[in-house]
Amino acid sequence: MKTRDPITNLINALSKFPGIGERTATRLAFFVLKEPVEFANELASALIEVKEKVGLCQRCCNLTEGDLCAICRDTRRDPTTICVVESTPDLRAIEGTGDFRGTYHVLHGVISPLEGVGPDDLHVRELLDRMRPGPDQQATPVTEVIVATSPSVDGEATALYLLRLLRPLGVRVSRIASGVPIGGELEYTDRVTLSRAIAQRRDM
Amino acid sequence: MKTRDPITNLINALSKFPGIGERTATRLAFFVLKEPVEFANELASALIEVKEKVGLCQRCCNLTEGDLCAICRDTRRDPTTICVVESTPDLRAIEGTGDFRGTYHVLHGVISPLEGVGPDDLHVRELLDRMRPGPDQQATPVTEVIVATSPSVDGEATALYLLRLLRPLGVRVSRIASGVPIGGELEYTDRVTLSRAIAQRRDM
Repeated sequence: MKTRDPITNLINALSKFPGIGERTATRLAFFVLKEPVEFANELASALIEVKEKVGLCQRCCNLTEGDLCAICRDTRRDPTTICVVESTPDLRAIEGTGDFRGTYHVLHGVISPLEGVGPDDLHVRELLDRMRPGPDQQATPVTEVIVATSPSVDGEATALYLLRLLRPLGVRVSRIASGVPIGGELEYTDRVTLSRAIAQRRDM
Repeated sequence: MKTRDPITNLINALSKFPGIGERTATRLAFFVLKEPVEFANELASALIEVKEKVGLCQRCCNLTEGDLCAICRDTRRDPTTICVVESTPDLRAIEGTGDFRGTYHVLHGVISPLEGVGPDDLHVRELLDRMRPGPDQQATPVTEVIVATSPSVDGEATALYLLRLLRPLGVRVSRIASGVPIGGELEYTDRVTLSRAIAQRRDM
């Protein structure tokens, strides 16, 4: 709701951010008031610019300024392996490891019946399109899809859904490992993670 | 530093907020990307508007859109009592009680030698001007100044500084009470607060 008071308007706008309540929004708004006008201008133009310029990659649905994202454009990346992630921050996290040299596919969500998110709300169709090489798609066929959704209830359900769609196409479908994190303490690991780490033990 | 990547620019701008690190800024930036464009536009215009329209009240240095703030304009407020606060959020907190019917004076800071803030960096001169009624000032003289700076080292130093300036002018200078908060547990109250609560005990 737009009011006549500029401070209230700013507090209302800031408190729409996730995890930012009215109290934090008030603190941030007073910070804006105290800072030189350049801070507000810079943030405002960054907000406008990001919405004007950033769209989705036509191939992998990653965020990009052009038609294809930097990873899809990079010819040194292996186009036969696709890592499916929930979101762009997840993609950034995997890129941060520097170990994965394949390409990605960003679903922009997970199937979540409780939140009313079905398969049609995700970018699953674009993933399937990549399995059938066509004029718009890459030349080399995809051989493996790594499903890197979170090991949560919704993430697992999404992974199973993708498995059912992809296996008939003759592509290898794999799932990221879950277990005790490196450096984690067994004592403080939750029971579900621990029992899965034992069930999915591997030979040394 | 301005980069060519709109997402990085937005993350950089957001992480200038106090208490918002790069990780939170990234989360907020991706929220902006996911939300409809109206969210970014609304926040951007609220940022611009607040810096364009909001200035300081000529009398009490509270934030206002006009020359005088709503409290100074309100003729039902008692102009003979001034409550001195560190910041506008502190003023809002006292207004939130609904109990104080006097007027305010906002210092916009406290004297803090460690952070290089001296009396000249605060709006002390404007407070002194209010003690000598002139053509620009209110007609009725001020009889009491309540110093409501925080009971911290800097807040106490500022209170003492104001006391030395104001007492020679023949005005009553008082200080907000400090002690165990209402509903607080004695067991968990820090030692300084507790010993002050005992030293400043009052008859029942």
